[in-house]
This record gives sequence, structure tokens and C-alpha cells, in this order.
Amino acid sequence: MTEKTTAELEQLRDKIDEVDQQLLDLIRKRLDLVARVGVVKHGAGLPIYAPQREANMLAKRRTEASDMGIPPQLIEDILRRLMRESYLNEKDMGFKQVKTDLGKVVIIGGEGALGKLFGQMLTLSGYQVHSLDKDDWQQADSILDGVGLVLVSVPIRLTCELIRDKLGNLPEHCILADLTSVKEAPLKAMLETHKGPVVGLHPMFGPDVGSLAKQVVVVCEGRQPEACEWLLEQIGIWGARVVQASADKHDEAMQLVQAMRHFSTFVYGLNLCREQADIASLLQFSSPIYRLELAMVGRLFAQSPELYADIIFAQDKSQQAIGDYLDNYANALELLRKGDRETFMQWFAEVSQWFGDFAPQFRNESRAMLQSVNDMKPAH
Amino acid sequence: MTEKTTAELEQLRDKIDEVDQQLLDLIRKRLDLVARVGVVKHGAGLPIYAPQREANMLAKRRTEASDMGIPPQLIEDILRRLMRESYLNEKDMGFKQVKTDLGKVVIIGGEGALGKLFGQMLTLSGYQVHSLDKDDWQQADSILDGVGLVLVSVPIRLTCELIRDKLGNLPEHCILADLTSVKEAPLKAMLETHKGPVVGLHPMFGPDVGSLAKQVVVVCEGRQPEACEWLLEQIGIWGARVVQASADKHDEAMQLVQAMRHFSTFVYGLNLCREQADIASLLQFSSPIYRLELAMVGRLFAQSPELYADIIFAQDKSQQAIGDYLDNYANALELLRKGDRETFMQWFAEVSQWFGDFAPQFRNESRAMLQSVNDMKPAH
Repeated sequence: MTEKTTAELEQLRDKIDEVDQQLLDLIRKRLDLVARVGVVKHGAGLPIYAPQREANMLAKRRTEASDMGIPPQLIEDILRRLMRESYLNEKDMGFKQVKTDLGKVVIIGGEGALGKLFGQMLTLSGYQVHSLDKDDWQQADSILDGVGLVLVSVPIRLTCELIRDKLGNLPEHCILADLTSVKEAPLKAMLETHKGPVVGLHPMFGPDVGSLAKQVVVVCEGRQPEACEWLLEQIGIWGARVVQASADKHDEAMQLVQAMRHFSTFVYGLNLCREQADIASLLQFSSPIYRLELAMVGRLFAQSPELYADIIFAQDKSQQAIGDYLDNYANALELLRKGDRETFMQWFAEVSQWFGDFAPQFRNESRAMLQSVNDMKPAH
Repeated sequence: MTEKTTAELEQLRDKIDEVDQQLLDLIRKRLDLVARVGVVKHGAGLPIYAPQREANMLAKRRTEASDMGIPPQLIEDILRRLMRESYLNEKDMGFKQVKTDLGKVVIIGGEGALGKLFGQMLTLSGYQVHSLDKDDWQQADSILDGVGLVLVSVPIRLTCELIRDKLGNLPEHCILADLTSVKEAPLKAMLETHKGPVVGLHPMFGPDVGSLAKQVVVVCEGRQPEACEWLLEQIGIWGARVVQASADKHDEAMQLVQAMRHFSTFVYGLNLCREQADIASLLQFSSPIYRLELAMVGRLFAQSPELYADIIFAQDKSQQAIGDYLDNYANALELLRKGDRETFMQWFAEVSQWFGDFAPQFRNESRAMLQSVNDMKPAH
């Protein structure tokens, strides 16, 4: 490198440093302004996540960016990242309490990760929250005294038995709700055990989300929906979207979405392990897409075996779906063994057609994701 | 909403608009400054991607952010997103030409997507690039006249035959290289057919990457590596990382990374299709992780059946790996049918242990990815 080049680069880099300093100042300013919006919204009891306003704001910024020769996607991505931080911060402020005369909330399994998250959100919203765990049943009567909402958050395999054995004597005005990832059986158990309002909830996210903004909670109606309305409104104020569904439709979808997918991810990891694959060298050869897929597999095995055993073993019906997959796999392998490329491509085309417009949509979505995976790559 | 609340929100939002306007100005400024760095680097023939400098710069910004009460990850994510844009822009400027007396580059299959990308990169670096496709073989002699590098980029199933049939008469100083995703057979074919320098390349990315910055190209040495050195240097200048590997080790890893993974993704899509799953309702119930996984499956079916048939049918050895997976799947299903939770959890623990430190690492990585997937979620 010549001296002139070095000097030129040095000078430009100083200027970039200056710009970055101003960037940090602006970020600080924007976070503070959005926090003040949060305070005002909090005072007025407005939800923190306003999808339509957000969409309008982004559309405006995209146009402004275009006019300045800046790729619109760039400003959108940066603003979305900033908004994530603001959603996280909004938690510190607390949330509007929708139901001020509820009495106690008791979370059964409140020491579990998901129970803890809901306990935290309810506390931040001004409710008086108590946890009732394995060792607390001797004091159950005093803990449950004056309760207005019981939230069941225990492992799936224990849920129904616990409801039937322990929750037969709740006050009639009390809401009984659960957070289990299957809905038919727990809902049935709750309806048979408790005479008052009942609602089944399935939060479609793990306990490690920083904020509930944009997350989904599936709601299956049980009894006296009007008495449960405030709870759904409260969840909306936390930023989550409430999706109503019937318990059987929910469970059917979950066989494919959860049991099936977790099972095949489990087998994928098992297979890597049995083949004694060398992860470090796999990573060395990995494109962003495979690194992402490997991370998704590894992620599962960083979590609790019980949790996944519960999800996979919970539904008898998922055995059928999981078995069907085995048949399809065996059939496709047969094509490979026979070297039958033609039929393989025919099946491929059939599936493409079935995916329809979703295939290109997924392709675009995954491209954006892969780009951000690539952004994250550390220096090597 | 009271009038006071409305007015307060209005005022704050105006201020946020102002901040965003300044943000756009700064982005424009930063992109321009980095472009000027690019011009200087281009003139001096320096690579566009300097990992160590990037790491230092990010570390400095993180510290500055911390001092201002800004989460360090926030500024890192924003700067990485900005750098991606700058890498993309750097392409427009062209690249330093490492070998100025090469003569022609001929890309066989230059009309295919990957051939086109390499043709574009070589042209941007000042080389004289010609494409030789299916219909051009009658003019092959004139196209290949004065050639210094032949790059083979045709479907896997045609690669070896094409090399043996058509490339026996290249000038002895000419480099023969290929871009195939398997390496042993093509390398053998090239070495047997051509007496001069030979090198096998496997670009670990799809043709839809916007920039080669941070991407990986696997290099398998063939003959006269010193004559091929400029080519690897050239690839480095485009921003990619060159990973040296032996052809057999590469192919072995690829059986697990590519053939195996693509095959099981194929079966997953086939299974959804045969079960007549309702994608729209699956999406409605989907957590970010499942949406991401579904997008990865759908992505495959937005692409060419031939491409995937080629990858999956290319290696006889991958049948073994794909068959082993079937056995592991059948064994795990047996556990499910017997309701044997205990053994399931035992296997789970075994795999977790085998993943070792990679499991929590993957968990953290995937959490970051899932957060950006969630950021991207449009208003509903």
C-alpha cells in the first residue's frame, strides 16, 4: 500500500467514525422519543403494537429513501431493528391493567419458564400474581383464596390430571385457563372440572422471546367468553396477536406443525450423531442455508428432553402423521435406489404445483433471512 | 383517546419523523463515504472485505454504544446491515484484475445462473469473458482460441462426460476449473483430460447472493497450484473466503450437508402435499421458528427439479447416508408407537451430549435469527 493510499483511507475512515458517532446520537434520541410515546400510550391504555401505524410509517420512509437513492429495504430493515429494541424497552414501563377488580392471579407451574414469563407480564400490568408449584399444594387453599384467574402452565402429560384432581373447587366467577400446546384434552378437562369461565390458550412462542410484540397466542373458547374478554384484551396490550380457533382444528394443525416437525428434527440430530458426523468440518463447508438448518437442529438439543418428549408423545393422532412421513421417505428412497430421476422430478413438480404461490413467496422470505444470517457472520 | 393524548402523540411522532429524516441523511452520507473507500481500495487492488478491520470497528462502536446506554447488539446489527449494502454497491465499481495477461476466459454453461454470476464477476474485474453453451459447440474452436481459463459450470450429470469429450485439446498453459458441487469425479476427469493446471471449485452459495462478501468457495487442488494462485486471489478480492479441502473429504461432508438435507426437505414437502395440509392455516398457527422452517421447505420447491435431482442422484454414496436416516427414523417411530418415553429421552440426551458446546451456540445463533424473522413480520 502506498503512503498516499494509507493517508486517503485514514481520512475517509475518520469521517466514517464521525458519521457513526452521529448515528449513535440519533439512535439514543429515537429510543428516548419512542419511550415517551410508550409513556403516553401506557397512560391512555393503548396497545404498544399498532400494526397499521407501523406499516404507514414504513411506507413513508421507503418513499423518502427512494427519493434519496437509498434502497427502501435498507431503511425498512434498520427501522424494524430499532422498533424491536423499543418494544423490549416498553416492558420496563409496565402495561395498562385492563381488569382492575380481578383479585389474585394464580399460576400453576409459575416457576416454569413459560409460567414465569406470563407471571412477569401480568405483574407488569399491575396484577397480584402468585405461583403454585409442586411443593405448594399443602398451602393451596390459602394461595387460591380470592383468586380471579387460574393459569395452568405445567408439562402436557400432567395437565389434565392436575386439572381434574386439584381444581374442582375454584370460585365460580374465577377464570380457568391453560397454556398447553395441545388444546382439546385440556379444554375438556377444564370444562368438566370447573363450572365458571374457561378458555384455552396456546402461546406460539418460546419463553426466550424478549417481548410479546407481534407474537401469536391461539385462543380456544371454552365457556363464558364475555368473562374472558379482558384477558384477551390484556394480551393484545402486551403486543401479541390473538388468533381464535377451534380446539380440534388447532390440534390437527399442531400435529404437522409441532409433533411432526420436532420428530423429524430429532431424527436428523440422531442421525448426525449415529453417523459420527464432524460438526466443525460440516460448518466449515456450510453455506448460510445449511448453517441455519444445522442451527435449527442443534437448537432443539439445547433444550429439555422432557419438553420434546411431552410434545411428541402427547397426541395419539400424530403417530399417524409421523408414520405417513416414513412411508413417503421410503418411497422416495426407492426412487433413488432405482435411479429413477424421472419420477423424482415428476413428484417434485407435483409438490411445487401444490405449494403454488407460496413457493416463490417462501423463496423471497428465506432469501431475506439468509441475507441477515450472512450479515451476522463473524470475522473468520 | 383524549384530545390531550392525541396532541401529545402527534407531537412526539413529528419529532420521530425528524429523527428519521436525519437518519436517512446519515445513511446516505455513510454509503457515499464507504463507496469512496471502495474507490481507493480498488485503485490499490485491496480486497473489499477486511474481516479484522470490520471486527475492530464493531468492537469500538459497541463500547461507545454501551457508554451511551444503547444495547451494543443494536448498533452492531444496524452497522452490519449497512455494510451489506456497501458490499453490494462495491460491485458496481468493478474489481482489481489480478492477472492482466491471461487471455480469454471461457465459461462452459455461461448462460446458467451460477455461470452467469462468475462471468459477471470476472467481467467486472476486467477479464474478457466468453460463454460456451449447448448450441455453441460448432464454433468451439474459435471461442476457445487464446483461452487462459476454462470454467465448467454445467449440470452435475453432464460435467464429467463433457470434460472428457470436449476439453482434450486446451492449450497446455490454460487453467481448467469447474464449479460443480461434487469434486472427486470432475477433478479426476479434468486431470485425465487436460495436461495443464487444474483446480476444482465449489462455491457454497446460490446464484442469488447479491455479493460474494463473506461467502465461501471450497477449493480442491488438482495440478500446478502455483499457476492457479491468481484465481484464488481474485476470488478473495471479490470478498469470498477460500477454504482448501481434499476432494474426498469435501464429498463426504457434502453427502450429509447437501444430498441428505435436500432429500429430507424434499420428503417433508412431499409429505405435506400428500397429507393435503392447508398451508394458509399452518401459517396462521405458526410461530416464527416454524414459519422459518416452512419457508426453507417451500424455497426448495421454487427452484428447478433438475438441479435437485442432480444433487441428490449424483453420488452413489449418499444413498447409504439417506438409507441410514430411514433406519433411524423407523427406530424412533417404534419408540413412539410403544410409548417408550424413557428411551426417547435417553437418545435425546445422547445426541445433546454429542452436540456438546455446539448446542448452546446454535441456540444463541438461532435466537438471533428468529428475532430478525420476527422483525420482518409484516402488519397483519
